[in-house]
Amino acid sequence: MSIYLDYAAATPVDPRVQLAMEPFISEDFYNPSSPYMAAREVKKVVTEARARVAYWLGARGTEIIFTAGATESINIAVHGVMQQFPESRVVVLSTEHESVLQSAARYNHTIASVLPNGNVDLDELARLIDGQTVLVSIAYANNEIGTIQPLSQIGQLLQRIRIERVQKGNSLPLYLHTDASQAAGYLDLHASRLGVDLMTLNGAKMYGPKQTGILYVKAGTRLQSPFTGGGQEGGVRSGTENVPGIVGFAAALDIVQTDRRENQAKYAALRDELQRRITEAIPDTVVNGNLKRRLPNSLHLSWTGVDGERLVLLLDEYGVMAATGSACAANKQTASHALQACGMSDDLLAGSLRLTVGELTSPEDVLQAAEIIIKSVESLRQKDN
Amino acid sequence: MSIYLDYAAATPVDPRVQLAMEPFISEDFYNPSSPYMAAREVKKVVTEARARVAYWLGARGTEIIFTAGATESINIAVHGVMQQFPESRVVVLSTEHESVLQSAARYNHTIASVLPNGNVDLDELARLIDGQTVLVSIAYANNEIGTIQPLSQIGQLLQRIRIERVQKGNSLPLYLHTDASQAAGYLDLHASRLGVDLMTLNGAKMYGPKQTGILYVKAGTRLQSPFTGGGQEGGVRSGTENVPGIVGFAAALDIVQTDRRENQAKYAALRDELQRRITEAIPDTVVNGNLKRRLPNSLHLSWTGVDGERLVLLLDEYGVMAATGSACAANKQTASHALQACGMSDDLLAGSLRLTVGELTSPEDVLQAAEIIIKSVESLRQKDN
Repeated sequence: MSIYLDYAAATPVDPRVQLAMEPFISEDFYNPSSPYMAAREVKKVVTEARARVAYWLGARGTEIIFTAGATESINIAVHGVMQQFPESRVVVLSTEHESVLQSAARYNHTIASVLPNGNVDLDELARLIDGQTVLVSIAYANNEIGTIQPLSQIGQLLQRIRIERVQKGNSLPLYLHTDASQAAGYLDLHASRLGVDLMTLNGAKMYGPKQTGILYVKAGTRLQSPFTGGGQEGGVRSGTENVPGIVGFAAALDIVQTDRRENQAKYAALRDELQRRITEAIPDTVVNGNLKRRLPNSLHLSWTGVDGERLVLLLDEYGVMAATGSACAANKQTASHALQACGMSDDLLAGSLRLTVGELTSPEDVLQAAEIIIKSVESLRQKDN
Repeated sequence: MSIYLDYAAATPVDPRVQLAMEPFISEDFYNPSSPYMAAREVKKVVTEARARVAYWLGARGTEIIFTAGATESINIAVHGVMQQFPESRVVVLSTEHESVLQSAARYNHTIASVLPNGNVDLDELARLIDGQTVLVSIAYANNEIGTIQPLSQIGQLLQRIRIERVQKGNSLPLYLHTDASQAAGYLDLHASRLGVDLMTLNGAKMYGPKQTGILYVKAGTRLQSPFTGGGQEGGVRSGTENVPGIVGFAAALDIVQTDRRENQAKYAALRDELQRRITEAIPDTVVNGNLKRRLPNSLHLSWTGVDGERLVLLLDEYGVMAATGSACAANKQTASHALQACGMSDDLLAGSLRLTVGELTSPEDVLQAAEIIIKSVESLRQKDN
């Protein structure tokens, strides 16, 4: 018996995605830049995939850059903007992924705090954006606690600041980047509705192939790629196009965006049942994040007097795969900076569990997992007392 | 009927490679950084793949960085060294791939010329490396004319210069990077025998998956990755590991390196036959590159009075897929800088054809292709006269 509840760390490739990729692996394997007909057909396939991705973002094909994953997209976004404006400033949220925080750390940067539910404090954000700020980077939804940010409100705030800048004669642009890696399966990605200039998506978090992604770059955005080479992807991401990966990414986005309302309801029902069972059995369970605005598949719990690392290993023994937080953080065995940023006490922080349901999660899985989690938390608490 | 003679632009994925990747796509899809057993098993698989790759390079596992392709490896190598020594200098060969030339162009750089056969001029190179030079980047074998560079001699030259530096009290390191993307299928990759500090390999050029590659970084090399993020790959290439890609890359390298002597002979026989037939039928055919030291699968020809672009399209009509030069250059419709660097006349330059045989090329393909090429060159010459 094994129950996977860590869809935020990795998703299996959807069989339809794999099928879509198949022809481009050993049959139509051509370099899209080659001059013969068979290669030009492959180039067309890339163009079509780009158009399909653009459709879901309400964007033009030329605004979609295929990359080798979210970290690369984020690197191109942050370094690509900041290296042009070395005196300027980037504002990031304290709960951002390492790839945003580490990238921002190379420049003048300001870290905006979050409210206890993980949401941005819009008033504080407004104060932190000064005349030198050229980039704001805020994830659409947090990868640990699932809190969804009010992106369009942030976009409107930035738009007001841009208008003020014009009035003051400040010609510095102000861009909004969002890492939408965790959001892509469930939320609206329409770039202009969200008010974003740059957006990162990650194939590996939405049932697409690993190390695939895109960076949306709104037309007119001043971005100088840190990547140098053959000039593919409009010069932003050089390197021979990963045709199967591109096709797979587009197919995956098609599927998750087509089904997103249905999945929202389906995953939320599973998640809510999991939450209900656990919180009823262990009444002092703390449910983290914004309970009204969080990813439908995401449940983040904390308990006092429980060692989260041991809990995860114990669950694994019983066949439940879950995490204390993000896989990156787990790897480095550091406490989650995102949870710290939410102001959680050290005790609760140490007793955290992230559960994320997905495509293959059944109602039976939820019942079984709830039972195992309850039993495991209780057993760890008894041991320690 | 279709005959593919452009293996230098792209190779199909070997069925054995595809088979090796298969389990990690939708079954063992876990994030290697996750804490549960199933994910730790996947992490082991990555470690084993790393060890296999290291074996062929005579390296340690920790010296192998899995990347998303050759362009990325080259970016990490060049920017990763140069950004630390902004006052210093990089020396590159005039025939290098765009990814090397464009990366070098962001720093103080010197371009070393080549002899007409495409080989480095070692005396000139020795003169061009001055006290400020921190990096030399020279491809193992050229991607257009197939000329193989005397890497170990270059390595020895650099070693002499390093010793002189120590004597003079110059503490600036001097690193040798080689792009071995085209060489990996045929040549010895033992890093210390070659005397390289950094080496790029490309999965997509050796029957592995697209957008996979490695950067070998010799222990002790001062490299600060331009990539920021979660800290995977020893902090050099952040981003969730592309497990199927890594496994596929390692399997591909295993296969081509195991079979390389056999393939050397097999491909050279096919190539030589192709060359013999064409040069006998069209005696003024110019065979480019170093005819004694070129890649066994590589044939680069030129004719006066022939438009290479039209030749390639005509060949395509007859079912022969070939290129004038590199796919990247073809895409930008510019004349090959590598051929210009070899001092070729404009007329010959414009009448170039690159033919590269590979795994699926049969002796019959060679006979048929030779006939079609001869016919096509003659017909274009007649038309123009």
